[in-house]
Amino acid sequence: MTDMLTRPMIEIASALGEGRVTARALVNEAIDNHERFGEKLMAYSQWAPEHALQCAAAADAAFAAGSRAGSLQGIPTSIKDLFAHSGFPTFAGTPKRLPPKFEVDGPVVASLRRQLAAVMGKTHMVEFAFGGTGHNAHYGPPRNPWDAREHRSPGGSSSGAGVSLCEGSALLAFGSDTAGSVRIPACMTGNAGVKLTLGRWSAEGVVPLSFTFDTPGILARSMADAAFSFAALDPYLGDGFAFSRRIASIGIGGVRVGLAEPWFWSDCENGIADFVKQAIDALARAGAIVREKSLPEAHEAYAIFVEGGVSGIELRAFLDLELPDWLVTIDPVNAPALQNAEKLTARDYLSRRLRLSAAAKIANARFDDVDVIAMPTLVLTPDVMTNTQNADRFWARNRGIVRNTAPVNYLGLCAVTLPVALDRLGMPVGLQFVAKGGNDELLIAIACAAERVLGTPRERIGVAPMCKS
Amino acid sequence: MTDMLTRPMIEIASALGEGRVTARALVNEAIDNHERFGEKLMAYSQWAPEHALQCAAAADAAFAAGSRAGSLQGIPTSIKDLFAHSGFPTFAGTPKRLPPKFEVDGPVVASLRRQLAAVMGKTHMVEFAFGGTGHNAHYGPPRNPWDAREHRSPGGSSSGAGVSLCEGSALLAFGSDTAGSVRIPACMTGNAGVKLTLGRWSAEGVVPLSFTFDTPGILARSMADAAFSFAALDPYLGDGFAFSRRIASIGIGGVRVGLAEPWFWSDCENGIADFVKQAIDALARAGAIVREKSLPEAHEAYAIFVEGGVSGIELRAFLDLELPDWLVTIDPVNAPALQNAEKLTARDYLSRRLRLSAAAKIANARFDDVDVIAMPTLVLTPDVMTNTQNADRFWARNRGIVRNTAPVNYLGLCAVTLPVALDRLGMPVGLQFVAKGGNDELLIAIACAAERVLGTPRERIGVAPMCKS
Repeated sequence: MTDMLTRPMIEIASALGEGRVTARALVNEAIDNHERFGEKLMAYSQWAPEHALQCAAAADAAFAAGSRAGSLQGIPTSIKDLFAHSGFPTFAGTPKRLPPKFEVDGPVVASLRRQLAAVMGKTHMVEFAFGGTGHNAHYGPPRNPWDAREHRSPGGSSSGAGVSLCEGSALLAFGSDTAGSVRIPACMTGNAGVKLTLGRWSAEGVVPLSFTFDTPGILARSMADAAFSFAALDPYLGDGFAFSRRIASIGIGGVRVGLAEPWFWSDCENGIADFVKQAIDALARAGAIVREKSLPEAHEAYAIFVEGGVSGIELRAFLDLELPDWLVTIDPVNAPALQNAEKLTARDYLSRRLRLSAAAKIANARFDDVDVIAMPTLVLTPDVMTNTQNADRFWARNRGIVRNTAPVNYLGLCAVTLPVALDRLGMPVGLQFVAKGGNDELLIAIACAAERVLGTPRERIGVAPMCKS
Repeated sequence: MTDMLTRPMIEIASALGEGRVTARALVNEAIDNHERFGEKLMAYSQWAPEHALQCAAAADAAFAAGSRAGSLQGIPTSIKDLFAHSGFPTFAGTPKRLPPKFEVDGPVVASLRRQLAAVMGKTHMVEFAFGGTGHNAHYGPPRNPWDAREHRSPGGSSSGAGVSLCEGSALLAFGSDTAGSVRIPACMTGNAGVKLTLGRWSAEGVVPLSFTFDTPGILARSMADAAFSFAALDPYLGDGFAFSRRIASIGIGGVRVGLAEPWFWSDCENGIADFVKQAIDALARAGAIVREKSLPEAHEAYAIFVEGGVSGIELRAFLDLELPDWLVTIDPVNAPALQNAEKLTARDYLSRRLRLSAAAKIANARFDDVDVIAMPTLVLTPDVMTNTQNADRFWARNRGIVRNTAPVNYLGLCAVTLPVALDRLGMPVGLQFVAKGGNDELLIAIACAAERVLGTPRERIGVAPMCKS
């Protein structure tokens, strides 16, 4: 059976369970895909086909014994190299292997492995996850497969995650999201991305960028796949099939969609605002109740990000304590921010934290009359990478990239991005749904309902040019 | 029926439920007790007998209708003035009423009120809970009823909480514990005190001292009463009767008690170390398995406290943002610490936080072969208050007071204190049991088992001289 990997994850998982396909065949298909498309794309820092085949053998042996260790048994998965996975070194985008304590599985990776998923390898990332373009001075950035001519940003910091989905070497990609690091690469590569409420999934076993805001998350080729994977890994659910069945009956009719205020739509490049609005109009025609809804606390949250936020100083304090030797090789683009952090007073740092707490309380209360607030995930088109090598230019673009994503983290909300169009340059455009903190399941159900109206990403925007057979 | 209030809380709650006593009678007895003993003690900043009688009327009406709103229905309770309770102004030990947002019930007070407990009033406290002796330049400290001759420290920061129990105007007292503020006053006044694992109970509706470490907690006249109250208020349990019955069968036999290393026993005054060791010996004779167990991370945690900890700067940042006008009237004893906090860098602050996180992980893992670690709650005898009016002397004593309590907060553990003796000056001595974070129920069950071996505080140390009829 060929092209099994292009089907919805729930169908693949069902076929595996019913013996209609083997994990070995799936993984071989994933390996073939990587060999066909992957060379120029550079999704993986550690590509591990032999390990993946061992995982597949374990999954197949368990299926043969009638055992299902979890919904993701046999599913090809890529892991951002910020996550510890015993047996793989952790580099976190740095030039040097981190100490062994950073190679101890945390709960999310442990759950994935317990379910006998097939781990294909570890994906490239921005050094210590500090930045949104995918830039990495040590390894170079992965390539965005949606532009066959120029090397455009694949998004960051989970820069290889989305690319691994595009090339067909993984059905599920692990990322982490502190200011947008799951949603940005998902959006830029035409995939779905889920940023859960802070604390829903433990960040243990993930090298910290900001211990205050780090959230493990996932990227998948569709919201339906993301929903299945989310439920499989989620400690409160633990079953992809049951959750997918449960939300299948939730339609978009009657869902209260807030249309975010103009602040979230300003500076949109290459028609992004129009494409996102067209998608929301389609949802309204399908019965969603769309009304204007503002979230002014996002402006304050973003202003705090622009002031310097909390990641720079929290990363600096972590490196001082745990990895001082890694400071000397830090990416020149990031070095000034980590250097400047020395001057920040605890008062100013804590003032940022407290202002964000206060704003988060108000922001969460705004979701009393809407289920989600909708806006473009990103207002900028992915850059040609050579345009952002200068540090000032890089940070200016980076601020633009995270404008609609970082406030979600800072305000204790949750969000998803789903691909809805290609912009005038042919690059993917994402629609972001933001929900009240804790409403992850409702958010994902609504996004799946929206996807059923809009069509899957594959139906709606097709396949990345560099990953076409 | 007189002297009802001297009985165990579970008996009183049963008698209320069976109509053998009314809440009105109980509250009247509590009011009588306050009028007899309270004048010199100054437990309350807001004494509210009329409100308490209204609560009693509501409780009695509900009992008459056959309704039980909760296990604490009709139970006289005092509230530290750090907790918001709508209808009462919040001063938080300051000279000026806080803004209305600090008068909105948080979940713990809301639960108490939903249960129709009888709120007797708000108790005195250290300004913004910043300090362990009970010192308060604006109102003066409550008096410790165990010394009829001299005005000794009632402990702090919940300085009126323990005193309210001694005088018999409350069976349950709310406190908060950031470095020992529940256990210190409980210990100094011969009561039981419970510091739960951080996050078990929401700190919402409690004016923050350290948003990182604040934990709401309770004081009661015995561990049995504390256990009943804990379960009544706990969102995971919600029933004092059921929990008390469940733990009644857990004996001390086979309980693994770690005897903390000499560091925790040094500098004990007036025979405190000997009295605590005698209590542990009695538990060993009753079947507890006592072995030496060290907790070296506590030394590091205490060193971080002595460096300046995190409360000073977190309180300062909170005041800057929310209550800048309160800085000008700040207690002269606390002013220098809040002033010095200006100089702290974010790097140093975060280094403290990260060192504590790392130490907490190791400390919690030490509880693999012991259920609790035992030590004196306090190594110092409560001071005569006039001896600590000088700021340097105050802080030196304060450092000594929190030495065995603050590391519990800093390491993410939980702990109780129970009274086991009177020291050579006749002041109460507390035994502290420390347990792994999250093991609150086990900890409380063990402390209750220990209390059944040692005798209730009333049996073991009697009644405070200033509260004897």
